[in-house]
Amino acid sequence: MNLQEQLTELARRAKAAARALALLNTAEKNQCLLAMADRLEQQTSALLEANREDMQAAEAAGLRPAMLDRLRLDAGRVQAMARGLREVAALPDPVGRILDERVRPNGLRLRKVTVPIGVIVIIYEARPNVTADAAGLCFKSGNATILRGGREAFHTNRLIAALLVQAGQAALGQRFPAEAIQLVPTAEREAIPILLSLTSYVDLCIPRGGEGLIRAVAECSRVPVIKHYKGVCHVYVDRDADPDMAERIVINAKCQRPAVCNAMETLLVDRSIAAQFLPRVGAELARRKVQLRADAEAIRLLSGVRTEPPLELRPAIEQDWYTEYNDLILNVRVVNGVQEAIEHINQYGSAHSDAIVTANETTAQRFLNGVDAAAVYWNASTRFTDGGEFGMGAEIGISTDKVGARGPMGLEELTSYKWIGIGQGQIRT
Amino acid sequence: MNLQEQLTELARRAKAAARALALLNTAEKNQCLLAMADRLEQQTSALLEANREDMQAAEAAGLRPAMLDRLRLDAGRVQAMARGLREVAALPDPVGRILDERVRPNGLRLRKVTVPIGVIVIIYEARPNVTADAAGLCFKSGNATILRGGREAFHTNRLIAALLVQAGQAALGQRFPAEAIQLVPTAEREAIPILLSLTSYVDLCIPRGGEGLIRAVAECSRVPVIKHYKGVCHVYVDRDADPDMAERIVINAKCQRPAVCNAMETLLVDRSIAAQFLPRVGAELARRKVQLRADAEAIRLLSGVRTEPPLELRPAIEQDWYTEYNDLILNVRVVNGVQEAIEHINQYGSAHSDAIVTANETTAQRFLNGVDAAAVYWNASTRFTDGGEFGMGAEIGISTDKVGARGPMGLEELTSYKWIGIGQGQIRT
Repeated sequence: MNLQEQLTELARRAKAAARALALLNTAEKNQCLLAMADRLEQQTSALLEANREDMQAAEAAGLRPAMLDRLRLDAGRVQAMARGLREVAALPDPVGRILDERVRPNGLRLRKVTVPIGVIVIIYEARPNVTADAAGLCFKSGNATILRGGREAFHTNRLIAALLVQAGQAALGQRFPAEAIQLVPTAEREAIPILLSLTSYVDLCIPRGGEGLIRAVAECSRVPVIKHYKGVCHVYVDRDADPDMAERIVINAKCQRPAVCNAMETLLVDRSIAAQFLPRVGAELARRKVQLRADAEAIRLLSGVRTEPPLELRPAIEQDWYTEYNDLILNVRVVNGVQEAIEHINQYGSAHSDAIVTANETTAQRFLNGVDAAAVYWNASTRFTDGGEFGMGAEIGISTDKVGARGPMGLEELTSYKWIGIGQGQIRT
Repeated sequence: MNLQEQLTELARRAKAAARALALLNTAEKNQCLLAMADRLEQQTSALLEANREDMQAAEAAGLRPAMLDRLRLDAGRVQAMARGLREVAALPDPVGRILDERVRPNGLRLRKVTVPIGVIVIIYEARPNVTADAAGLCFKSGNATILRGGREAFHTNRLIAALLVQAGQAALGQRFPAEAIQLVPTAEREAIPILLSLTSYVDLCIPRGGEGLIRAVAECSRVPVIKHYKGVCHVYVDRDADPDMAERIVINAKCQRPAVCNAMETLLVDRSIAAQFLPRVGAELARRKVQLRADAEAIRLLSGVRTEPPLELRPAIEQDWYTEYNDLILNVRVVNGVQEAIEHINQYGSAHSDAIVTANETTAQRFLNGVDAAAVYWNASTRFTDGGEFGMGAEIGISTDKVGARGPMGLEELTSYKWIGIGQGQIRT
């Protein structure tokens, strides 16, 4: 079989497995998930051995230390995977929820009920824990997964997937649809466009990784893709903001974990309070070693300020406003009120997470309505856009799309729905 | 400007208009819709004149009578467009509905609220009424539309779109975002792939038409497409069916309006009742001039039956089971119970609408769970898959997709959602 035939067969089997999986009840799915968690922990030494093989090849290939760290498994990370599976087992089943119910004048009863999406391709980079996390979330929501991790983690991922399937088979025997969790059996790059052309079998692709990976996937896919390219998040400090609250939110949104997608990249400050607010927040940002890229007005207001260490400040260029730094770098701009803030965000932002700090409810409502983003906050940090913080339990990713799930994607966001009509012989007249 | 630049500018303006439109309140939108309806009626003679131009060109080009009928406007059809806009005005506003609300342990209040999708490209064929229907539904749900009708209806569509915009401007003045309703200003074919590559401005494409059109759109699009390719719908008559009810549903699903997507194309009959059921339903189908394409068992059971007129009966070939006839032709197959029926439907069906007739609740539940389709019915005709019949009011189309809307798409299905977080200064720790 050539690659096209091989992947078509893999996807065809995934579709059949998805149909069998959709018929398992909640207790059966949870039994499998708990068995999977146990199996991973029991096989820790085999997992570390497979991972050592990947690590040695990666070191020999000269991978960067940050990449090596993502690739590495240790006993704690294996336990974290197992814990994740147990947490998913403990979450409510998202399938079979009644979203709507109506009885028509002719007596036909219509129910809108959640169902699994079907077959989901997950494309990700070096972290092997994604294999267990994604497979667990998809399994609980009744979806078959086709997993495509980074080539550098191939041996580790292959063993994780095999252990998950073995555990499911031990738990349910023949009733476990073994092909509901499959790893793409090749590291060839051409596998991705082939898989994402199989519209008869694949229902959705969720890519997780850097903007380059996600753009490449979205460009070549013929199946729906749910994604966010990047997180260029904003905090707008309004004239009616409590300055202490504003500083606390700005520092948290930028500094608490700068490498993640819901960290702030651009601070917008209302002109009427900029002369008071910018020097004080600038001092604190300097203390935290945040470099600033600022517009002319902000530079004027900040350049006289003495800080310890001295503030690193340079003029922002147009491209900066579009940039996700994932680092201790912050754009700063002075704007004429909330409308200019909204316009800046809608032009340069990534529709991920944006916040306003103000005590004025009217201004806040304008911002919450006017900013076109997956999550908008009033008097809270952008850092809350996260499945755990939203109370969804684990998340498989964050979407900035408008069709399908938007914002953090937990179990409910991995379902579709069907309409069920129950009649007593109704016909259309 | 070349075509690429021209369409990019059009889409950029649509996006800006969508943002302005999203800020209009329900009363303002309804005022516009009612003004649009009045304007179309007032301008009936101008519309018929523009349509005459299109009709003459179409006749000269030798279009088929069925196409000419779709293209033709008359006073009744203009009134129907106006009535459609008034009905949309009367429907509840789908924007701003709270889908979910939760307060987190840290006091952060999260609301999941419906918002417009943004910019929607509608691609359709000859019927000019789609221009008003689609623009009205999108406008009420806060979405800007870019309309691309069939080239043969260009003059008619252009006038309809212009009248809608004039009416909105007369109603709201400067507050009406004129570029929220735009017609693609060229009949060039290349306009479609260009428009559907503009992922920064276009949020969704809804193609309406034959399978060829929809496949061409889905193939070239880089923006999400919500669609159904075809309707290969099934009725399964179970051993526990009431035969009178089964016959009534079968005849309705096939004959009441055979040219539409929710009409039945394949009848599946349980082997244990086939010898009783097929001859009686065969006689009625013959009376209604339905031709049958049947498997060997059904042929055996039907070929001895005397009907008036004689039954047109021939063996089905593999391709027939996949075919949407849109005509008085029906596939018939004898199956071994509900499981074989489910497998047939999942293999050959189009995931549109499928029904079981049975008095046995356990069997019905197996069917409703096992069939993977947008709408599944128990003891009711497949013909009910329709926005009006579902109580949605008008519909913009039917989706068999799993990501985004599934089944009939009314106003609610033209919305996305955003998460709104309201805090008192919460930061992430």
